[in-house]
Amino acid sequence: MKLDIGRMEHGPLNLITDVEGVLVGHATVDRDRCHTGVTVVLPHSGNLFTHKVTAASCVFNGFGKTAGLVQVDELGTLETPIALTNTLNVGKVHDALVTWSIEQCAREGLRLTSVNPVVCECNDSRLSDIAARPVGQAEVFAALGTASREFEQGAVGAGRGTLCYGLKGGIGSASRRFDVAGETFTVGVLAQTNYGASADFLPTQLPRDLAESDQGSIILIVATDLPLTCRQLKRVLRRCSVGMARLGSYIGHGSGEIAVGFTTAPRAEQGEGFIALRSLREELMNLPFRAVGEATEEAILQSMLWAKPDETLDGKRIGTLAEKMRPQ
Amino acid sequence: MKLDIGRMEHGPLNLITDVEGVLVGHATVDRDRCHTGVTVVLPHSGNLFTHKVTAASCVFNGFGKTAGLVQVDELGTLETPIALTNTLNVGKVHDALVTWSIEQCAREGLRLTSVNPVVCECNDSRLSDIAARPVGQAEVFAALGTASREFEQGAVGAGRGTLCYGLKGGIGSASRRFDVAGETFTVGVLAQTNYGASADFLPTQLPRDLAESDQGSIILIVATDLPLTCRQLKRVLRRCSVGMARLGSYIGHGSGEIAVGFTTAPRAEQGEGFIALRSLREELMNLPFRAVGEATEEAILQSMLWAKPDETLDGKRIGTLAEKMRPQ
Amino acid sequence: MKLDIGRMEHGPLNLITDVEGVLVGHATVDRDRCHTGVTVVLPHSGNLFTHKVTAASCVFNGFGKTAGLVQVDELGTLETPIALTNTLNVGKVHDALVTWSIEQCAREGLRLTSVNPVVCECNDSRLSDIAARPVGQAEVFAALGTASREFEQGAVGAGRGTLCYGLKGGIGSASRRFDVAGETFTVGVLAQTNYGASADFLPTQLPRDLAESDQGSIILIVATDLPLTCRQLKRVLRRCSVGMARLGSYIGHGSGEIAVGFTTAPRAEQGEGFIALRSLREELMNLPFRAVGEATEEAILQSMLWAKPDETLDGKRIGTLAEKMRPQ
Amino acid sequence: MKLDIGRMEHGPLNLITDVEGVLVGHATVDRDRCHTGVTVVLPHSGNLFTHKVTAASCVFNGFGKTAGLVQVDELGTLETPIALTNTLNVGKVHDALVTWSIEQCAREGLRLTSVNPVVCECNDSRLSDIAARPVGQAEVFAALGTASREFEQGAVGAGRGTLCYGLKGGIGSASRRFDVAGETFTVGVLAQTNYGASADFLPTQLPRDLAESDQGSIILIVATDLPLTCRQLKRVLRRCSVGMARLGSYIGHGSGEIAVGFTTAPRAEQGEGFIALRSLREELMNLPFRAVGEATEEAILQSMLWAKPDETLDGKRIGTLAEKMRPQ
Repeated sequence: MKLDIGRMEHGPLNLITDVEGVLVGHATVDRDRCHTGVTVVLPHSGNLFTHKVTAASCVFNGFGKTAGLVQVDELGTLETPIALTNTLNVGKVHDALVTWSIEQCAREGLRLTSVNPVVCECNDSRLSDIAARPVGQAEVFAALGTASREFEQGAVGAGRGTLCYGLKGGIGSASRRFDVAGETFTVGVLAQTNYGASADFLPTQLPRDLAESDQGSIILIVATDLPLTCRQLKRVLRRCSVGMARLGSYIGHGSGEIAVGFTTAPRAEQGEGFIALRSLREELMNLPFRAVGEATEEAILQSMLWAKPDETLDGKRIGTLAEKMRPQ
Repeated sequence: MKLDIGRMEHGPLNLITDVEGVLVGHATVDRDRCHTGVTVVLPHSGNLFTHKVTAASCVFNGFGKTAGLVQVDELGTLETPIALTNTLNVGKVHDALVTWSIEQCAREGLRLTSVNPVVCECNDSRLSDIAARPVGQAEVFAALGTASREFEQGAVGAGRGTLCYGLKGGIGSASRRFDVAGETFTVGVLAQTNYGASADFLPTQLPRDLAESDQGSIILIVATDLPLTCRQLKRVLRRCSVGMARLGSYIGHGSGEIAVGFTTAPRAEQGEGFIALRSLREELMNLPFRAVGEATEEAILQSMLWAKPDETLDGKRIGTLAEKMRPQ
Repeated sequence: MKLDIGRMEHGPLNLITDVEGVLVGHATVDRDRCHTGVTVVLPHSGNLFTHKVTAASCVFNGFGKTAGLVQVDELGTLETPIALTNTLNVGKVHDALVTWSIEQCAREGLRLTSVNPVVCECNDSRLSDIAARPVGQAEVFAALGTASREFEQGAVGAGRGTLCYGLKGGIGSASRRFDVAGETFTVGVLAQTNYGASADFLPTQLPRDLAESDQGSIILIVATDLPLTCRQLKRVLRRCSVGMARLGSYIGHGSGEIAVGFTTAPRAEQGEGFIALRSLREELMNLPFRAVGEATEEAILQSMLWAKPDETLDGKRIGTLAEKMRPQ
Repeated sequence: MKLDIGRMEHGPLNLITDVEGVLVGHATVDRDRCHTGVTVVLPHSGNLFTHKVTAASCVFNGFGKTAGLVQVDELGTLETPIALTNTLNVGKVHDALVTWSIEQCAREGLRLTSVNPVVCECNDSRLSDIAARPVGQAEVFAALGTASREFEQGAVGAGRGTLCYGLKGGIGSASRRFDVAGETFTVGVLAQTNYGASADFLPTQLPRDLAESDQGSIILIVATDLPLTCRQLKRVLRRCSVGMARLGSYIGHGSGEIAVGFTTAPRAEQGEGFIALRSLREELMNLPFRAVGEATEEAILQSMLWAKPDETLDGKRIGTLAEKMRPQ
């Protein structure tokens, strides 16, 4: 949907997949009292374990259960797709990524004995029976198997059961493009939105009818093709906070707010000893900083705009941003 | 000046000194081509080395020269007043705080052999000859000697030569109050504002006539009387980012953005072995989180509203927020 | 077994369970080509989700897959038992801890919708078919169900398939006691040892027949009843490095070296708003520092001394420290 | 002096200056009751502000006053020489480095308005009147002006008044060399040693006649010409802990233990937008890890072996390691 956030240009799809090679897939679960799912982001379609990408993480508020960050921070690389799901389903999705990595390596004749799955989460227990943990290997493999450049936004995959600023949240995405020394680069963001209290939502003068406190969480996945070291990437991730704050949140105590990012820029082997890297001149970092701030703000709004009305497990109706913005 | 930021109540002065015992002092230098100074924040009027306070820091963007954070982070305590000055003057102000601490201990018969001065800074080289480093022991002692509960805001002390969103910046302050279990607590913020680009300033539709990039820095000093551990205090400091982002900045590469905070809540010795502490129940942390976000936003605006027009070393006029807000 | 490490006294069992209330349980898997397991450490026998303990973590080398540290670092609390297992089994053990927490809360009439399992791991793929992931809910529940004050050391539970300095590693434990202001406190360590190259092993002049590089990992669980804040606890954990280094390792690139610790010291609620804490006077921290260094060194050696000879999946014999120390 | 630490080869001088281009200078103060000084380490003899080097830091125990680490951690670069001095002299040495940088830039026609001096320190108050702060611009400029490839070790410069394991400490240095893909690289360490208690000293069975507690501090400066990113460099610095622990210390509470390191490997500009970097393949990191551990251990011992006997301000004789090792 059309929004006017910031001043930078967006990519052709205005999605994280505007970063060349990146794929996104969902599997949504709607059965019994479960309304949840899994969303995966793949930096490229190859074997990530044998072709790792430079990566970083940033924890704004660590009341969250994201797995895999210890190794990302130490080694600066990502070696599995990133999976998003609900809080209690992290273990099962983690295990499914292990299986997927073993199988992918086996097809290439490799015995995999170690891998670091990255799994992020939000708590969708207001709309879904979170204790049931229905997202297993079948769902993760379905999401991975159908991952593509174009993908659905709103209440799908890991965003199926989330709330954002008291309205229906979900999965949203946006991108920004800019030039460096004659080349064009892209920064893309995918958000799983489950954060913010209704009364704090800034952009519109909504009727503030919900007394709900700021709980839930927000996960931001950032992709770029800009050549950055993992230190620089972490600096970029830290600016996701700008996009979040501009929508009104005060970073609630109970809100796990975490960003994970990667660059697809090439890491060329140089003989047996070294890797040849390119990194952006530090004084040009304001370009990706602004890009990620704008794309984060827009991705959050897109997650809300694409979502459909819903109701909580105890029967309360959850409205949408689209409804609220409609002239009444 | 009257502003309407957020929804929490402010303290009687709407200053950081609404936190009982906290004192603020300035010394301003206006000579030759120097327009700079020093501002000090004292958690209490006693000997800080022998009566330390619980403290924490938070670095949003570490392109800055703040001294003393290594020990604050390790031990969770502050043992000198916090001094703010310009970038190149950090060493001399650091040395002056050492002298001051030695003298204060000597008056009590103690030989001081170690002390950790905390000195923060912004770069005021657009308005002042920063290489001259005119802030020495006389200025620091003057600021410390005149520190009081009421103090001036705007282009004074360490804010004398700063710019904020392309307008005149300076020192600003604000406070918020709230109740916990029948007791009233205060969170106060003092900002040294030198950050943000004119074109990003959000609150008003200013004519955007400056092409200036986002450089400079911003320092936030946070005081409270709420019983918090240093881990909790760091969580509070992290929410200063909300107040900064709501005014429009994308956290520029060149902007050193750092918060240092302390609580004056008592640390009672318990025999020879232990300290008795009280800490806020974690699920109530949204109270100080919202308070610090609101007070940060307001402190920044106050620094701009109190400032007077000025000009850069190369003769460009610097306007004020008050001018811009006036109907024309 | 009798060792003479350091100069502090050990507790009655010389185990981590000398810290009152702490329990340890194992489940060992020996089937097909799997020789692995799970070891659990419980800070107390009650409901950890409703009665959390103060906790901290320390990452010496983050080439590891430990789950749950993001929240431990943010909130300073532990809300599940700590489980140790092998690298690829983290997801399934994570999920089992979720089930266990849900059931424990359900028995008290609580609907659990969020919990942060802490799962640590070493890579036992030299002795075990790590891809098989045989440790599931049955094994985790068995370990939790049989956890007790006395427990086996050596090649059991999560130490079943590990190697240490080229010899058989496993699970080891030790404790140290000291007095503060008339009270006696205990620091206990449990180690899952899988680190170090044969040629670097310091304590004895072993024949250095293995060219094996330093891979694997080491996990240190630290328990104490000393009143410490999570900041102080993290300082204590950092001294585990001393015990590790004194045995000869250079902290290999591939070795995930991580410590997780907790204190069972009481956190008393104080009305609706606050928690009353006691914390050790900082200048007495050398007591737990030395204790954790000594106990870490001894726990590692105990893991090796209790282990029995074994062989790798490809048929190479793995000797023991006991064999090497025997006069020949 | 001849030592046999570890198994790697040392460079021609067995000093940090075996890393090509690195220079070290001292100025020693011996007047009144002051026995102190300053030591500087220069990554190269050019203008560091305009030709920065990749840098990192690592804080093992942050009870210390080192200045400049906030920016080193954010930007991964060093832009001044590193200066070592005593605790209370940090401010004056900081200011002298500012003056030196301004003058160096002015000679090239640049107006310097911002610079990040890195100043480390140990507390030499047992042997020197630390409150006097006699190290000023003259001393810093003298050290910088006489910096060279060969330099004195022992009780000189910033090591003039330090104690180590109850014996005379000082400045020590060592280096290690190894090959990567046919090229030879060097890791060098310079230590300012002021840490450790006599009773904990491991290498020799010294008579343990001192009841002195572990106080003081230790600073490790690490130089290399190996192409490393700042993330990799930080991993290398973390292994300084191995060298320290192998000599017996438990990282005392009062001991500020900090490492700062840099690589002189080239950072080539690539057009207007990028920097071309080379980085070591991560799986080869065990080479610099072992090198830095060995060189740290040896540098500490060299600082002690070169030192001469001395006495404290209150007249207690301080012996040397050389004396202790002599057959009696």
